[in-house]
Amino acid sequence: MILFVILNILKEIAAFQPEFVESISNVSVPVGRDATFTCHVRHLGGYRVGWLKADTKAIQAIHENVITHNSRVTVSHLDQNTWNLHIRAVTEEDRGGYMCQLNTDPMKSQIGYLDVVIPPDFVTEDTSSDVIVPEGSAVRLTCR
Amino acid sequence: MILFVILNILKEIAAFQPEFVESISNVSVPVGRDATFTCHVRHLGGYRVGWLKADTKAIQAIHENVITHNSRVTVSHLDQNTWNLHIRAVTEEDRGGYMCQLNTDPMKSQIGYLDVVIPPDFVTEDTSSDVIVPEGSAVRLTCR
Repeated sequence: MILFVILNILKEIAAFQPEFVESISNVSVPVGRDATFTCHVRHLGGYRVGWLKADTKAIQAIHENVITHNSRVTVSHLDQNTWNLHIRAVTEEDRGGYMCQLNTDPMKSQIGYLDVVIPPDFVTEDTSSDVIVPEGSAVRLTCR
Repeated sequence: MILFVILNILKEIAAFQPEFVESISNVSVPVGRDATFTCHVRHLGGYRVGWLKADTKAIQAIHENVITHNSRVTVSHLDQNTWNLHIRAVTEEDRGGYMCQLNTDPMKSQIGYLDVVIPPDFVTEDTSSDVIVPEGSAVRLTCR
């Protein structure tokens, strides 16, 4: 009977440990556009959500506070379950993994990846400009 | 002349960027004892000192606030230049690198390593207990 009560208490404590609800979606954006990662958690309670860049280990934010002095980084949250990391005007250096971290012991984490794509562009100097030819003659236009 | 003024302003801005004064000393302690890492910085200004475990990337503390729910971790600072991370009653899992991080852009960091040593111990069951022998006879004592 006592064992049963203890087991139930342990179950309840476990139920109130924060956890991730789904994995972070990877993001692919053209250079210069904005990117957002969303971390879905439940039972956050008094625990906090941290964000860091996985490769450099640079702390981006803790809960509602941005830590990095990179002014393009901000955070927001919808409720206690939905936590966002926003990166404005992404550069190629922003590419890589972003870790959402819960300050449990042991720590729990998830990583989402940012891909920064470079949109295709015309090689103006190798591309034909306007061409005027007589009717019936051949014309060759190049686009690079 | 204008260039000279601009150069001087840039120099002054650079002078007020926080930086590390010396590297973090590695620490080697017997299991169960306490460990302290010290991060020496200057020109910290409004920047903050963060600590994280390098392998797991678990954030330990930001400035005066402990982030991890590991109750054996605390922080202290002497002044704005000397920042400590304390780990009480170290376990073998605590072994590894600890990163001191400044929230500059780009981030600056240093790592100190914690080694947890296991003191040698007697193998009681393989070691001789008290032996009583007659005077003049041989005796063999084993210590393992």
